[in-house]
Formats: sequence, structure tokens, C-alpha cells
Amino acid sequence: MLGGPGLQSQKVMEGEYVLLYLDQRRTYLVKVEAGKTFHTHKGFIKLDDLIGKEYGSKIASSLGVQFAILKPLLRDYIMKSTRRTQIIYPKDIALIIIFSGIGPGSRVVEAGTGTGALTTALAHYVRPNGRVYSYEVRGEFLETAEKNLKRAGLIEYVELKNKDITAGIDEINLDAVILDMATPWLVVPHACKALKPCGTFISFSPTIDQTVKTVEALEEKGFINIETVECLLRGMQIERGKTRPQTLMTAHTGYITFARKVLEPTAENGSQEGL
Amino acid sequence: MLGGPGLQSQKVMEGEYVLLYLDQRRTYLVKVEAGKTFHTHKGFIKLDDLIGKEYGSKIASSLGVQFAILKPLLRDYIMKSTRRTQIIYPKDIALIIIFSGIGPGSRVVEAGTGTGALTTALAHYVRPNGRVYSYEVRGEFLETAEKNLKRAGLIEYVELKNKDITAGIDEINLDAVILDMATPWLVVPHACKALKPCGTFISFSPTIDQTVKTVEALEEKGFINIETVECLLRGMQIERGKTRPQTLMTAHTGYITFARKVLEPTAENGSQEGL
Amino acid sequence: MLGGPGLQSQKVMEGEYVLLYLDQRRTYLVKVEAGKTFHTHKGFIKLDDLIGKEYGSKIASSLGVQFAILKPLLRDYIMKSTRRTQIIYPKDIALIIIFSGIGPGSRVVEAGTGTGALTTALAHYVRPNGRVYSYEVRGEFLETAEKNLKRAGLIEYVELKNKDITAGIDEINLDAVILDMATPWLVVPHACKALKPCGTFISFSPTIDQTVKTVEALEEKGFINIETVECLLRGMQIERGKTRPQTLMTAHTGYITFARKVLEPTAENGSQEGL
Amino acid sequence: MLGGPGLQSQKVMEGEYVLLYLDQRRTYLVKVEAGKTFHTHKGFIKLDDLIGKEYGSKIASSLGVQFAILKPLLRDYIMKSTRRTQIIYPKDIALIIIFSGIGPGSRVVEAGTGTGALTTALAHYVRPNGRVYSYEVRGEFLETAEKNLKRAGLIEYVELKNKDITAGIDEINLDAVILDMATPWLVVPHACKALKPCGTFISFSPTIDQTVKTVEALEEKGFINIETVECLLRGMQIERGKTRPQTLMTAHTGYITFARKVLEPTAENGSQEGL
Repeated sequence: MLGGPGLQSQKVMEGEYVLLYLDQRRTYLVKVEAGKTFHTHKGFIKLDDLIGKEYGSKIASSLGVQFAILKPLLRDYIMKSTRRTQIIYPKDIALIIIFSGIGPGSRVVEAGTGTGALTTALAHYVRPNGRVYSYEVRGEFLETAEKNLKRAGLIEYVELKNKDITAGIDEINLDAVILDMATPWLVVPHACKALKPCGTFISFSPTIDQTVKTVEALEEKGFINIETVECLLRGMQIERGKTRPQTLMTAHTGYITFARKVLEPTAENGSQEGL
Repeated sequence: MLGGPGLQSQKVMEGEYVLLYLDQRRTYLVKVEAGKTFHTHKGFIKLDDLIGKEYGSKIASSLGVQFAILKPLLRDYIMKSTRRTQIIYPKDIALIIIFSGIGPGSRVVEAGTGTGALTTALAHYVRPNGRVYSYEVRGEFLETAEKNLKRAGLIEYVELKNKDITAGIDEINLDAVILDMATPWLVVPHACKALKPCGTFISFSPTIDQTVKTVEALEEKGFINIETVECLLRGMQIERGKTRPQTLMTAHTGYITFARKVLEPTAENGSQEGL
Repeated sequence: MLGGPGLQSQKVMEGEYVLLYLDQRRTYLVKVEAGKTFHTHKGFIKLDDLIGKEYGSKIASSLGVQFAILKPLLRDYIMKSTRRTQIIYPKDIALIIIFSGIGPGSRVVEAGTGTGALTTALAHYVRPNGRVYSYEVRGEFLETAEKNLKRAGLIEYVELKNKDITAGIDEINLDAVILDMATPWLVVPHACKALKPCGTFISFSPTIDQTVKTVEALEEKGFINIETVECLLRGMQIERGKTRPQTLMTAHTGYITFARKVLEPTAENGSQEGL
Repeated sequence: MLGGPGLQSQKVMEGEYVLLYLDQRRTYLVKVEAGKTFHTHKGFIKLDDLIGKEYGSKIASSLGVQFAILKPLLRDYIMKSTRRTQIIYPKDIALIIIFSGIGPGSRVVEAGTGTGALTTALAHYVRPNGRVYSYEVRGEFLETAEKNLKRAGLIEYVELKNKDITAGIDEINLDAVILDMATPWLVVPHACKALKPCGTFISFSPTIDQTVKTVEALEEKGFINIETVECLLRGMQIERGKTRPQTLMTAHTGYITFARKVLEPTAENGSQEGL
């Protein structure tokens, strides 16, 4: 399980996932299965040898190369889930989480599930008494997502739904609706019904045109506090006397659009409130 | 309280904080106290009139101007806490949260508390069974932070400590140590002792020089996975036919440095692991 | 005159423009007129006292505050021309110049003239035997532009034309057509006729939508090497031990679109070239 | 020759360089030599067939693939010169040119020459009566630079010097000193002597530390208007309905530091100017 109380056991146990860390660019998320062997181009590691080792210790491969045995963090599970599609990054997930206002206990609808990278993050933060309802039309993705969520120990907080969210949202009274899909604007009317008042809508889209359509749909439904941002993350090479930004960076992943649902003022309300 | 189960009452109750929303730039975090009046340049609102209204509804001021009555999100509490010092922004807090790997149940040390913006976010995410220990040498800041944490309903998850963290960390077996202070490198040796193996260290610093010193201290203590990033957030003006990025942006807040603690391999370990 | 051979006289002469430099943010472009006085909030300077002083020397105001007497650079003339509209910045002008490929001897059409900021730069670089034809429909701007070009000593290289460029371009065989106007796509067909083969088309537009329309018009006319970029310039505060990027920056000025004209292959050509 | 009057002949002549353009990423700078053949993975082109063709027309390779025959622009010569070292980019050269204030007639010292990319740009803009003095200690680079400058038709405006500029600058009364080298701060005292009053100093450095040292050296010598910037260029993919920034970008090339030389105020001056 991710995180958890600080006093938990710190020995590697069979069946757990560990992150074998060689260097910044080479890390491996490995399930500790007795009798199996993990092979790298730097030699192999017998997984039996990992069992009972302390997290944070190091282990040498058959070629004598040291790997650190790390307890995977949320970010590791995210990165290992997204590698295949590489659409949504931790930087964007981070903003989505904080803009959405969700936390322990929140009820969230998400679409599409994809490989479950964002789902993993949502589940991590709504624990222990919240819930993520994740819609995905492509069945093959749901299998991958399920595998990734189980790996992260978070499947119990998620309901994976093989459904088209543009046809409607089953849940009501939601804290947030979070979309990473091709046509988010088609979901806006459903989100408007499914969200509780003050609930948040968030959409992540790579193109300008998706963003414009989504903002227009939000305006039409009376959402307020609509804003769109993009996030650029730049790595730094820190070394005394040679410090400088990294040479390459991801120039674009997507635009994040945020909005809040409100109840429309009725004529009656309007007259009541005026003095 | 922030977030919470979706089925909670949605009527404004006396003593709660509401966010009165006029437009993107003008929002007001107001405590609903019976008999009091909230004054703006757009007229006044009698707070008694808010009690029993539904969240998400609108209310007209004495001048007939509509304000939306919103349930404050984490981001609102953060923004209303930081206004005075304006050093740490939601974009940075978001990255710190996700990089740290913390979540419900995590035990975290933070310094300095400041006005409690970052503390508020940490407390929000470690609920319900985690804890934030927040160090601050300047007593006057602690009072403000306490007020802000109470306002956000999160004080019970935080222990505010009027102590100099460069003199030592009282807690052990921590999931994360998170620093937003002038001399983070002085805390690295203490963090190394206080963190559990695989625990995360995160520091936020405005200048290059602070960052270089911190990275050097981390390297000296054997931390791994050390990386430094900066995050640029740019707003977009979305309007059909006129879409463009906003004219001005914050060019810099600070660099975020991340690292993981490992146990050092002993000579004995080294020989044991080799095949 | 700007630049010029290095051995020219370096004494301030009556009638010249000097840049009085107080600090990074406070500079004044002043015409040295005998008998006149220049007033600032830091005291006054009798312009007679400037005559005969060496460029690069300093002069004290009536309040004893030192001002450096600088020979204005191209960038100073640009900045002092754009202050009113603040649409095009040196960073963008710099890219436009280098992407356009123009240099001494080039013949360039520009629209709209505006206050002449870009015109000034174009004239500076096509000297001594090139020419800038600058179109502007708003007569009042042309007067300002003329004043600014005279001030920079560059009016002789420019033909200011009070004409609507969307109605056509009078010149032919141009090296470049450079547009900073609301509807650049309407000029593309005229540019295609007016440019010589391999001539460059450049357009600067604040919005995405202008850019899309312009790129489509260029594709329709068979232009090649079409590319669009945006340029972000960030200032650094350099100070040992405190170095960091500046706090605020311009987040957006406009997108620059570049293209090259080619002759379309005729059927006959096509068959001749094939082997 | 680059640019030049608009009415020049537009037929390809033997001995000229042409840019064969396949698409945005595949362009070839080719010298038109009779009897030779240019081979690409898209077939070959007999260079004899290019002679007499109009610039801007297209030619088919032996495999029937169309290439546009373009007259190279300054940017093409720069890009084809830098490919080997890839340190200085057109975006940086553009800012250096405009910040320096140079133009036709300027006298400029540059170091180090490298492969001549920046030298090419400087020579292009100081034509016809200015001059570039380019220092380089590594003889092998000077040969490449000479070849690149000849190719661009600009060698006559440049004096290549196999000398160490940190040992001194031979020229005086310069308009600008422009540095792209490892230790620019060592050149500041020489630049201060070699520049005419109001002359500009520009340095391009990849690291923070080089920049700090250079700024300190400039302050010590009394330079004013010192400023440092970095330039981020981001490409856009423009396509109706799918417009978005490009996925990858260069995150960092270098910091550009700019300053102006002034004459120091003497005590006598100070008393004369005061009232």
C-alpha cells in the first residue's frame, strides 16, 4: 500500500512491489515473487534475496552493480503506468488534484481511465473513505488499469466502469468530475447534473480547440470560476560551478481547464436577495 | 471541513467559512457570524441571510450585485493564507505533494510554517490518521498559521512547534521532510536521521545558491534520486476567435528539490549481496 | 544615425538624440536643443550642458543625481517607439529580422506601420542600399512613425504609405513581406505576387485564430517551410549568492509565422525533371 | 551572397550554394558543381540540372521526389554551420544582434569563432562597410569557420584571428564585443579598453556560474545597463481543429548578458556638473 502510518514494517515481504533504483533514468518496478529472477543489462537479481531486506538498503546484482531497494511512491506508480501512452504527467496530475479540491473522503468521477495513471493518483488521495468511479469505453485499457491499480494497492477505492461517459454519468452528488478524453465538452451537461453544488469540473486536453469547446460548454451551463492553464516543468542540473537548466524539456502535454458548478439564481431568488 | 463525503449537508451553517465569489479576481473568504455584515465596494451582505442558503446558490448585495456562495476548496484556503507573503503557490504545493508521495496516514515534518499555506495542504492530504509537525521560529507567524488552519478545519492534524529546525528534529520514522525556509541545507543531516528509509526530502528555494547548497548536503548524506525542477504556470484566455495566452505571468517562485533517503551499504552488506 | 563606422565623432552635438540613463528602468530619449531644459523627478538638466560632452560620460542633474549620456542603440529607439502600443517587443523583432533573412540591400514590405517600432528595425538593417515600404491605413499613426524614424535617423530608407495593404501591394520582386496587423491572412495572396521566388513571408499575431487562418492561407498559396513559434524571454537577477530568475515576465506577445514562397511546379517542369 | 538588391538574377548559377528543401526537417545546403551528383535517400539529383533553373522552382530526384530549390537565407547558413557543436541557436543570435545595436558599418570583435555560426550573422549585418574581428585559439575551428563564411559569401567582411582573446584585444574604438566562450569574465577588462564609449558588451554562457562571474567583472569595470536574459522558443503545430504547441523543445541553450561601457565620472566632472 502507498504511504500509510510511519511505523509500519520496513522489511520487504513476498508479494510486495519494490522499486529497484540504479540511477535517475533506470528504475524498475518489480513484484517480489519467491523463486524468480529479475534480469537487467547490469546482471540479475534473485528475488528471494530481496525478501526480508530493509527498504532503503542496497543489493548487488550478479555483476556487482548496486541497486537501491525503494518502497514505490505514488509518482513511481504513475510513471510506470503512463509509460505506454505518455499523455498525462505527474506535473499535470498534481495540478488536477489540487485544483479539484479533493482529499480523503471525496467522491470523484473520472474518464477515460486509460492505463490508470490518473486513477491511481485519485484513489491515493480519496482514501480511506472516498471513491473513484472511472469510465472507459475501451475494454483492453480497463484490464491494464486494473492491473496497475492492484499493483499500487488501490483497487478497493476504485470502481472501473466499461461505459461511455458521453452517454451519461450514473453517480450524483459528486465532489469532482475529472476528464482526460478526446471530447470533454460532450460530458459537460452530464457533469453539471452529477456534481453537487460547488463541485469542481476539470478537463485535460492537448489541443486548443478541445479547450475552447469545453470552455464554451461550461459557460453555457453556467459554471463559474472557469480558468485554463498550462504547466511547464523544467529540470535543473545542479552542480557547483556548472549549474544550468537541462537541455531538453517537454514543451507541451495539455491544457488544464477548471470550473465550479453553481446553482442558477431563479427569478424568485433574485427578488428575495435584493434589498 | 474541506472535501468530505459527498452526501454531507449542503446548507450554509453559522460558523462556517464561505467563499463569496464576484469574479475570477474578486473572492472573499468570510466566516458566517450571525448579526454581522460583510461590506464590499459592491454593496454589503447581511451574513444572517447566508445561513440556510444552499451552497452554490447566489446572493445579491445591497447594490443588487450577485455573489456566488461557494464552499471553499483547499486552493482557496491556500491562496487566502499566502496573500501576505506570496512565496509559495498552489502550483508548487501541488508538485511538492505529489513528489513527496504523502497521502492519508503519512507523518510529515515541515518548516517553516509561515502563514500555514503549505501546512494547510499537507494536513488536508494526510487526513484522517496522519500528522503534520510544523516548525517555525517566528512566534507571530505561528499565530497566523493557527488561525488559518482552524479556518480550514484542519488544526487537529497539525502540531505547530515554536522551534528552530536547524537545531534538530524531534520526530523519527517520518514519511517526508518538507522545507520552505532560508537555509534548508542545515536541516539535511537532521532530516536524514528523522526520515524512515525510503522517506522523501523536499525543499523549495527561490535562489540557485540555496539549491546548490542543499543538493550538495543531500549528496554528502547519501540521498539518492536527487532532482531539481522549476514549474512555470501560464494562464490562457480562452475565447472563440481570440484565444491566446495571458499577457503576464509569474516568471519564478522557486526551485523544488526532491530526494530519497537510503540506508548506506555497509562493507558487510556489500559482500553478502555479491554473488 | 544608428551604429556607423567606429571612428565617428563621439561628442554630443546639438540636434542629436541622447539617451539619459538613470538606471535600468529609467531612461530618457532626449533631443539636444540649445537653450532648453530637461526636467525629471531627480532634478533638471540644461541641455546646453550636454553639447560637447563625450558620449559615455555622466552629467549631474540640478539635484546632484548622475545620469549617463548614452548614444541610443536600435533597441532604445524601438522601446521608445513602442511604449504607447506595447505590442511588438525587441525579442520578437529580433526573430523576425533573422527569420526574414533580410540585410543590407533588402527590399521589404511591412504592414501595419503602427508607431514605427518594427519599421525602425527593418530600416536599420537594410541600410544603406535597401528599402522598406511600410503600409498603414491609420493616418495618425503614420505621423508618429515618421517622427520616430526621423529621430532614429532612418527615414531616408523608408517609404511610408497611407494605404490598405489588404487591397494590394504596389511593389514586386520583394525579399520579404512582414506583417503585424489584425488580418494577415488577407494579405497572403498579395504577398505571393509581390515576393520574388524564395522570398520570405513573416506574420506576427497575438491570437491562435489569426495564426491558424494565416497558415491556411499560406498553404493554399503553396508556400513552403511554414513554421510558427512563440518566444518567451525571462530576465535573470544575477547576484552572487542570490541569483534567481525575475519574479514577473511577459507571458505572451504573439506568435511568429514564417514561410517561403516557391514557384509551383508546372506539368511540363515535372516531366522534364523526372529521369 | 546573402540577401542583396531585389532585382538580382534569380537563376541558379554554377558555383552557387542552393538549399534543397524536401520538408521542414530535411534540407540540404549544396554547392552547384558541374558534373557532380547529389545523393539522398530519396534518390539522386544531377547538379548540372540545377544550373539555369529559377530559384523557387522544384526539381524531381531520380526517384521522382520533388525538392524545392531555395536561395539560402542567413538562418540556413547558421543552422548548417552549427550542426556540429549545436551551442548557439538563431534565437540567441537574433537577440545578440539586436541587443548589440550593430548594423551596417559597425566594427565588432567576437570570440570564440567556433564553426563561424555567429560570425556569419555578424558579418551579414555589418555589411558593406563594417568589419568583424573574430578570435579563436583552436586552429582547426578556424578552418571550418573560414569554409562556412566563404560558403555564405561573407568572408570579405571578417578577419579571422588565431589568438587568445583573454590575452588582449588588438582593435580599439569598437562598437561591440561579443563573446561565446568558456571564460568571458577574463575578457571584460580588455573589452573595456577596446570598446568606444557607449559600446556594447554581450556574452552568451550556458551556466549560471559563468554568468555571475561575468556580471561581477562588468560591475567592477563600471559598465552600466547590465542585464541577463534567457530565451525560450517554442514551436506550434498549427492545424485547424488540432492546434497545439509542439511536444518537445530545447529547454536551455544559454544566458545572454548585455552591458554598456561608460566613461567614469572624474571628481572634476562631478563638481562641474553639480549646481
